[in-house]
Amino acid sequence: MKQHGKVYLVGAGPGAPDLLTLRGAEVLGRADIVFHDALVHPDVLARAVRARKVAVGKRCGKFTTAQQFINKRLVDAARKHRVVVRLKGGDPMLFGRAQEEIAALEAAGVPYEVVPGVTSALAAAAEAGFSLTQRGVARTVAFVTPRVGEGQAPSNWASSAASADTAVIYMGAGQAEQVAAGLIAAGAPRGTPVLVAENATWPQARRIALTLEELPRIADYGISGPTLIMVGRAFAAALAASEEKALRKYAQS
Amino acid sequence: MKQHGKVYLVGAGPGAPDLLTLRGAEVLGRADIVFHDALVHPDVLARAVRARKVAVGKRCGKFTTAQQFINKRLVDAARKHRVVVRLKGGDPMLFGRAQEEIAALEAAGVPYEVVPGVTSALAAAAEAGFSLTQRGVARTVAFVTPRVGEGQAPSNWASSAASADTAVIYMGAGQAEQVAAGLIAAGAPRGTPVLVAENATWPQARRIALTLEELPRIADYGISGPTLIMVGRAFAAALAASEEKALRKYAQS
Repeated sequence: MKQHGKVYLVGAGPGAPDLLTLRGAEVLGRADIVFHDALVHPDVLARAVRARKVAVGKRCGKFTTAQQFINKRLVDAARKHRVVVRLKGGDPMLFGRAQEEIAALEAAGVPYEVVPGVTSALAAAAEAGFSLTQRGVARTVAFVTPRVGEGQAPSNWASSAASADTAVIYMGAGQAEQVAAGLIAAGAPRGTPVLVAENATWPQARRIALTLEELPRIADYGISGPTLIMVGRAFAAALAASEEKALRKYAQS
Repeated sequence: MKQHGKVYLVGAGPGAPDLLTLRGAEVLGRADIVFHDALVHPDVLARAVRARKVAVGKRCGKFTTAQQFINKRLVDAARKHRVVVRLKGGDPMLFGRAQEEIAALEAAGVPYEVVPGVTSALAAAAEAGFSLTQRGVARTVAFVTPRVGEGQAPSNWASSAASADTAVIYMGAGQAEQVAAGLIAAGAPRGTPVLVAENATWPQARRIALTLEELPRIADYGISGPTLIMVGRAFAAALAASEEKALRKYAQS
């Protein structure tokens, strides 16, 4: 069967539609069909003016489409369409399961291209005004997730995170207690500053500064959107400001 | 003195001009003055149609402007102009020295905003077709640099990198021998696959696959552009392909 299409794995960026890249926008404008994560901003999707849009995944568990089924649909779509886009939140190559899709496309002989995106850790840092690296404070950064796929070996996420000056934990807010316990067990001091960023770059963005041992408290904040747990001395000023605010509040009461 | 301007710290992305974000392009279009790293693509700079352009840094050592002088110029410019852009290669919050500029702006009461960008590690991974995270292979990623500022304490870069499944070493190509030795001393196996990516996303992009113990050989490749050293099992297929090619070449000779 003659091969017609090309599949573009495109990073949609962290949320705000203008944090898409120019290349991502250009590819979407040419797309015939777009398979997208459910958390992609509607204004990003709207750039695919000609395309049929198919939701294939939701990050936090519900309504996920099995990865193998997505792989198959991408390959099938490339036989029918010229420009197929797999649109992923953030960047495809960081916690995006891109390799499984790439492997399926390569096995089927389908040409593909990956268009990188702004990963949410960088956008959350930008929004908060805290660089992940800081002269004399933080020179190493780890991106980890405590999530482990079904039937997989336990992950070294805690030791990796504790070995870095700055750690950004993706998809960990639902396990805040285990995250705090894991990091403390791996040697992170209990008082390490933590900045929790929910829905970074979306209008409903929210940030909570606390210490590592206080991290389990975020369970009381009703967090429901995609959330990063950012850990390290790089966020000390956020914690200090939050404590000052708390003290001020206390002094007023 | 009345404050007029706002300073935007904008990530120019990894190199290719269409890997700038839409927001970055919009801000550049409004800029009155742009202070840029020397490695920013001319087509990105050209988007600042109205702006005076001032080169203030070159990544690999030569012609660098002292950071304190850059800080001062940003503050001064904000008193004269409405839209001041500090345009940085990659993302401002990762090895971009943004915190020093933010601190200076905050101290002077100058409003600022950080516009994130695609960091070169993600773009290099996209170009090579290797996800930094891979199901069952790599769930933790470290971004480190062996570079240490003048008069600073030694960095934990090697232990952080060796603790992660995938490590991306920024600004380390000039010290390839020390990088390899440091990682091996920190416990990384000598045969760990390494993918060296020079000038990612530029027309002159080049990739070299080898093992960690072979890494010092890149000194023979005449590397001169910005280079990432990407280390881990995630790049095993690149190494295997490179060995196959080498074997084929050998068989033909």
